[in-house]
Amino acid sequence: MQGNHEQQAYDRGITIFSPDGRLYQVEYAREAVKRGSASVGVRTPEGVVLAADRRARSPLIEEESIEKIHGVDDHVALASAGHVADARKLIDFARRRAQVEKLRYDESIGVETLTKAVTDHIQEYTQTGGARPFGVALLVGGVENGEPRLFETDPSGTPYEWQATAIGGGREDIQSHLEDNYEDDLSLEEGVGLALEAIAEASDDGITASGVELTTIAAESGRVEPVTEETIADHIEDRDLGGEDDE
Amino acid sequence: MQGNHEQQAYDRGITIFSPDGRLYQVEYAREAVKRGSASVGVRTPEGVVLAADRRARSPLIEEESIEKIHGVDDHVALASAGHVADARKLIDFARRRAQVEKLRYDESIGVETLTKAVTDHIQEYTQTGGARPFGVALLVGGVENGEPRLFETDPSGTPYEWQATAIGGGREDIQSHLEDNYEDDLSLEEGVGLALEAIAEASDDGITASGVELTTIAAESGRVEPVTEETIADHIEDRDLGGEDDE
Amino acid sequence: MQGNHEQQAYDRGITIFSPDGRLYQVEYAREAVKRGSASVGVRTPEGVVLAADRRARSPLIEEESIEKIHGVDDHVALASAGHVADARKLIDFARRRAQVEKLRYDESIGVETLTKAVTDHIQEYTQTGGARPFGVALLVGGVENGEPRLFETDPSGTPYEWQATAIGGGREDIQSHLEDNYEDDLSLEEGVGLALEAIAEASDDGITASGVELTTIAAESGRVEPVTEETIADHIEDRDLGGEDDE
Amino acid sequence: MQGNHEQQAYDRGITIFSPDGRLYQVEYAREAVKRGSASVGVRTPEGVVLAADRRARSPLIEEESIEKIHGVDDHVALASAGHVADARKLIDFARRRAQVEKLRYDESIGVETLTKAVTDHIQEYTQTGGARPFGVALLVGGVENGEPRLFETDPSGTPYEWQATAIGGGREDIQSHLEDNYEDDLSLEEGVGLALEAIAEASDDGITASGVELTTIAAESGRVEPVTEETIADHIEDRDLGGEDDE
Amino acid sequence: MQGNHEQQAYDRGITIFSPDGRLYQVEYAREAVKRGSASVGVRTPEGVVLAADRRARSPLIEEESIEKIHGVDDHVALASAGHVADARKLIDFARRRAQVEKLRYDESIGVETLTKAVTDHIQEYTQTGGARPFGVALLVGGVENGEPRLFETDPSGTPYEWQATAIGGGREDIQSHLEDNYEDDLSLEEGVGLALEAIAEASDDGITASGVELTTIAAESGRVEPVTEETIADHIEDRDLGGEDDE
Amino acid sequence: MQGNHEQQAYDRGITIFSPDGRLYQVEYAREAVKRGSASVGVRTPEGVVLAADRRARSPLIEEESIEKIHGVDDHVALASAGHVADARKLIDFARRRAQVEKLRYDESIGVETLTKAVTDHIQEYTQTGGARPFGVALLVGGVENGEPRLFETDPSGTPYEWQATAIGGGREDIQSHLEDNYEDDLSLEEGVGLALEAIAEASDDGITASGVELTTIAAESGRVEPVTEETIADHIEDRDLGGEDDE
Amino acid sequence: MQGNHEQQAYDRGITIFSPDGRLYQVEYAREAVKRGSASVGVRTPEGVVLAADRRARSPLIEEESIEKIHGVDDHVALASAGHVADARKLIDFARRRAQVEKLRYDESIGVETLTKAVTDHIQEYTQTGGARPFGVALLVGGVENGEPRLFETDPSGTPYEWQATAIGGGREDIQSHLEDNYEDDLSLEEGVGLALEAIAEASDDGITASGVELTTIAAESGRVEPVTEETIADHIEDRDLGGEDDE
Repeated sequence: MQGNHEQQAYDRGITIFSPDGRLYQVEYAREAVKRGSASVGVRTPEGVVLAADRRARSPLIEEESIEKIHGVDDHVALASAGHVADARKLIDFARRRAQVEKLRYDESIGVETLTKAVTDHIQEYTQTGGARPFGVALLVGGVENGEPRLFETDPSGTPYEWQATAIGGGREDIQSHLEDNYEDDLSLEEGVGLALEAIAEASDDGITASGVELTTIAAESGRVEPVTEETIADHIEDRDLGGEDDE
Repeated sequence: MQGNHEQQAYDRGITIFSPDGRLYQVEYAREAVKRGSASVGVRTPEGVVLAADRRARSPLIEEESIEKIHGVDDHVALASAGHVADARKLIDFARRRAQVEKLRYDESIGVETLTKAVTDHIQEYTQTGGARPFGVALLVGGVENGEPRLFETDPSGTPYEWQATAIGGGREDIQSHLEDNYEDDLSLEEGVGLALEAIAEASDDGITASGVELTTIAAESGRVEPVTEETIADHIEDRDLGGEDDE
Repeated sequence: MQGNHEQQAYDRGITIFSPDGRLYQVEYAREAVKRGSASVGVRTPEGVVLAADRRARSPLIEEESIEKIHGVDDHVALASAGHVADARKLIDFARRRAQVEKLRYDESIGVETLTKAVTDHIQEYTQTGGARPFGVALLVGGVENGEPRLFETDPSGTPYEWQATAIGGGREDIQSHLEDNYEDDLSLEEGVGLALEAIAEASDDGITASGVELTTIAAESGRVEPVTEETIADHIEDRDLGGEDDE
Repeated sequence: MQGNHEQQAYDRGITIFSPDGRLYQVEYAREAVKRGSASVGVRTPEGVVLAADRRARSPLIEEESIEKIHGVDDHVALASAGHVADARKLIDFARRRAQVEKLRYDESIGVETLTKAVTDHIQEYTQTGGARPFGVALLVGGVENGEPRLFETDPSGTPYEWQATAIGGGREDIQSHLEDNYEDDLSLEEGVGLALEAIAEASDDGITASGVELTTIAAESGRVEPVTEETIADHIEDRDLGGEDDE
Repeated sequence: MQGNHEQQAYDRGITIFSPDGRLYQVEYAREAVKRGSASVGVRTPEGVVLAADRRARSPLIEEESIEKIHGVDDHVALASAGHVADARKLIDFARRRAQVEKLRYDESIGVETLTKAVTDHIQEYTQTGGARPFGVALLVGGVENGEPRLFETDPSGTPYEWQATAIGGGREDIQSHLEDNYEDDLSLEEGVGLALEAIAEASDDGITASGVELTTIAAESGRVEPVTEETIADHIEDRDLGGEDDE
Repeated sequence: MQGNHEQQAYDRGITIFSPDGRLYQVEYAREAVKRGSASVGVRTPEGVVLAADRRARSPLIEEESIEKIHGVDDHVALASAGHVADARKLIDFARRRAQVEKLRYDESIGVETLTKAVTDHIQEYTQTGGARPFGVALLVGGVENGEPRLFETDPSGTPYEWQATAIGGGREDIQSHLEDNYEDDLSLEEGVGLALEAIAEASDDGITASGVELTTIAAESGRVEPVTEETIADHIEDRDLGGEDDE
Repeated sequence: MQGNHEQQAYDRGITIFSPDGRLYQVEYAREAVKRGSASVGVRTPEGVVLAADRRARSPLIEEESIEKIHGVDDHVALASAGHVADARKLIDFARRRAQVEKLRYDESIGVETLTKAVTDHIQEYTQTGGARPFGVALLVGGVENGEPRLFETDPSGTPYEWQATAIGGGREDIQSHLEDNYEDDLSLEEGVGLALEAIAEASDDGITASGVELTTIAAESGRVEPVTEETIADHIEDRDLGGEDDE
């Protein structure tokens, strides 16, 4: 209780520092991210893989409506974890930013440039009063000058570049699976498999094809291409990751 | 009491994160939704059904004045549950948005586009200070390119697409009735029946024709068509859902 | 006391949700309405009756100055209960709104349109910070296309349409008198009588002609016509509702 | 103490409702009025009388400088009770409002119109945040179309019309003296006498000519005319209301 | 302590009413005035005298730099007591106001007009949020149409006109000395003497010529004329008011 | 603790009065001044001396970078004590103010005019909400029409003129050394010596040439001239004020 | 606990003074700096060295993405410690400022000018409400007119110039290593070595080439030149500073 009382002082009104130099509202927003189901990104020389757990709470929900991976431009996609409505707002921001770039410079926006525009926007919500931080983390995957890139954004507005990483619930388990199994020379195909294994890692009952969303951005094509449910099902079977499909 | 004290810290002033990553004001707004009477949506290949419980607190009230289903455009209608005045404000927003779309692009607004415009608007009220969230959930039913669509919006500003769902008081009971009885190939007629059964599920005393509001949007016509009290009465009798009519 | 402490958290600053989904400031504004003396509305096929209890606190006060019924336009009048200064502000709003309608469309404003403009205005004060809700309820009576209409607005900004209802102190007693005695085919004359009986219901000592304000809007004339003190006195005598007149 | 603690919650920041529907800041502003010395208004068929108690705290103060009756226009005057600086602000508002009316319509402002402009202004300060209510009550006396009118404004922004009334300290005693002694057919002269008696009622030691301010607005002249100290002295002597003059 | 706790509730944020109708921030600002050293004003038929106690805290301070009497225009001067920086701000306001008057109407501003412009400005700071009241009282002395005038302003924004008065520390003692010794027909010379005696009254050790600031505005010249240290010294000697001079 | 609790109420949000008429935020800002190392000013008929203690916390710091004396214009310099970043902001303000004066009137700004512009600016931050006071005191030294002037500004925004004074840590000791040793007819040379002695007074270990910053503005040249480290070293040696130099 | 309670009062809402003259929010922001890993700056006659510890939390992170040294212009670079997203914002500010200077004056911005523009910007966030301070310290290294300069900025907005210094975690140990080993006549090569030794000082396990970021700005070239991983590796080996490289 002591501890709680002290913390309470720092999370009312605007986002301010605690005596030990932490921003509680930002840390609480990180908890909101952990409450969301996981998303995973894997970068291979052949392209980037984004995968997301989207198991539905009811069989009557349209699973497509709980999309967690969103195309931002032909060559960039985002996967999210955390507060869904906040994610949608950042995705809109990213899309508008990509369009503006195209209109202004007649060129596709760079993956890093886009990520940093998003993190700068996120940071504003952690310093200036009158709004709370975004309760969401994003994986930004894309191809830039033929090279695959994979970034993460967190609720503080810090960008990180990764070979492979996870956001959302069970992140620690997934990350250590990735660290144990990632190799520099994975094919895109193998990257998809690794991403699915990682998602399965955070799940007690295995995964189903309809409960996972999967997108690749291949270095060659430079285009966002969603992976079909059939292909996902084949991967799950091949690697024996399956639980009971709820459809 | 402990628990209460801790919570109190997070619901004054603006909507902010609690230490476990929740937005209490949004969760309390969800409670406001549960305090409202239920609305149900059922999507069939032949069209969408929206049904709402609107039993009056006094025999002298004009039941039409406690409308819970509202046409937004020729091809889209909304059903609400929760804080009535908030619902009215969102309905106005949706109608204006639909009109603007028509004026700008000379086309009817898509059901999904409309839903997401509404949820983006709702999200703003959960992040920026100076206002509380909307204490209302909506079902958005309509026809888009000949295809029936059914969406839900919640107080966090998240859109969901459903085959069949419920909002408001008794949602859990209704939802499990829908899950047990929904089938992919229902006729619109059968959809109406299922919606009425679902509403009756949440009511101890059965329902009456005047205490239920019912609208369909058929795939063929693509138009919002309120169901008459007589037709409702027939359905109630057929399925033996009736209580004593209070008129 | 516990209970009080918990409540206190939700009524400072702006209007926000309590853990059980209620808006305390709005509910407290409803208490302000109950502190006011009652107003009654009765709708008959021949027209609408608005009646208000306006007993003076001193014999030296000009009873006309404690008006509770106000013409908004030729064909619409408002009766209020609750915080008088707030009522005056809403009445001004309604009058301006009616004038604008006339100037813009060269037509009288509809009773329902006017009511909803007022309730939308009221709702704004319950969601956006920096102001308290209006502590007043209104009855809106008028004739629209030859048809009598009677609406109620409450501090949440919800509109209701009624055959007969009451607002203010003693509402419950009055409403049940109305429910027991209202009939669909009352004459306007009988409606006046019913309204006076209902007002008398909430009063221990009977009523006096000068202590009641009474207005009708007849379907035929479509005009707001205040009922004279003499006519009121006759009704009181006929129905034996009289107390000792304090004039 | 309990009671105090509960109340404290409702009077910080902006003016909001208490659980029982009261606006504490407005009620506290009423206390500020009671802390002021009394003013009295009496309306007779021949004109309006405004009288004010202005006993000085030191013999060296210029009694004219503690004026409590102020001309607003040729035909209207205000008497105040309560927070002096607030009164001055409302008097300025009233004077500007009267001038604008004259410039716009080339006509003197009506007494009732002026009163209601003032009360609307007062109400704004009780609903919108960022300011406290006015801690002052006013008596507005004047002649309109040859007819004497007397209004009161209170800190909530409610206007009342009176035959005779008092504001400020000792209001209850004065009011009951007025109720016992007021008659419909008083001459203006008799009205002056009644007003002086009423002021004396609230004073233990009697009144002195220099300690009272007195103004009449006669129906015939329609002009504000301050009553001279000599005339007041005569009245005091005639009615044996005198205390020891402190000059 | 009880008492303290209760008070605390009323002096945070903006200036609001306490349950007994007081404005604590204004009353605390009055305390700030009492913490300042005294200023005295004496009005005689021949002119106005302003005197101020300005004993220095160190012999190295330039006594002129702790001026408490300031010319506003040729014919008006101000003496202050309380928070020095606040006084400077009001003096600037008064000077600008006097200049504007001259530019607009080509006439010197009246002493009463100036005082009321200052008090209106002060009042604003006691009603509208976002600023604290001014912690200073002023004496405004001047000549208007050949007639000497002396006004006081307090932190509430109320103007008073005086024959002779004091502001600041020891006000009560000084005021009663003035009441005992003031006469209507003092010469300006005698007025200077009375003012010095009054200042000495509030001082245990007597006064010194350099520790007092003294200005007259004679009716005849209508001009602000500072009294020299020599003249002050003569008066002190004549009246045996002297302490040990600290220069 | 009692005391602390009471005080806490007065220093949150904006700067407001305490029950005894004090502005705590301003007094706390004065504490910030005391936490800074001392600066001293001495005015002689031949010019003004400004001296400042700037001992470094590390031998690797560039002592010039911890400047505490800043030229504002050719003929005016400022010495500061307290919160360094705040000082820099006021110095910028003073420089811009001096430039504007030159551009507008083609004349150098007066020392007193400049000081009062600065104190008016400081006062604003003590009355209007949304910002804290400046945590810094300044000495303003310069030559105006051939005459040396020395002013002090404090966090309340009050200007004082001095013959010799100190601001910052150890002020009391330094001031009493100045009072004991100051003479009206010091040469500028002797003034420099007195200033160094005064600085040494507040230091247990003596002073070093590199740990003191020293500037003169001679009446004759009317120009700000920093004193070189060698000259300072000579003075220290002459007067035996030296500690061990840490360079 | 006492202590904590007292402090809490001073760190909510805006940045205000505590009773002992401290700005807690600024001090807490300093704690945020200490939570970051260290950066070191060394100035030699031949140029400036900036070094930063950037050990990754996972082997899969791209170490380049956790950059802590950023070029601002050809001749100036920044190293940061503390809240990463805040650092990025200040870096953007510095870059824009440098560009504006170039556009306006067609000249590269001075290192000192740039530093002071940044510290003025930081100070604003510590005095004006509605935002928290920046939780970051910066080292600004560059060449100005052929001369190497090294500055530090802290969260209060104070600029310091250094020969050699450190910011971030373990600052004290690093600083004392620098003080013991710094010499005025280091070559740039030796400066690089000293910087690496200093970084290693704060690390228990030694440093690795990939875990350190290193940049020089040579006086001769006047250009920011990142040091390659190979060169860093050589230095580490030469000085035996190595831990086990985690690549």
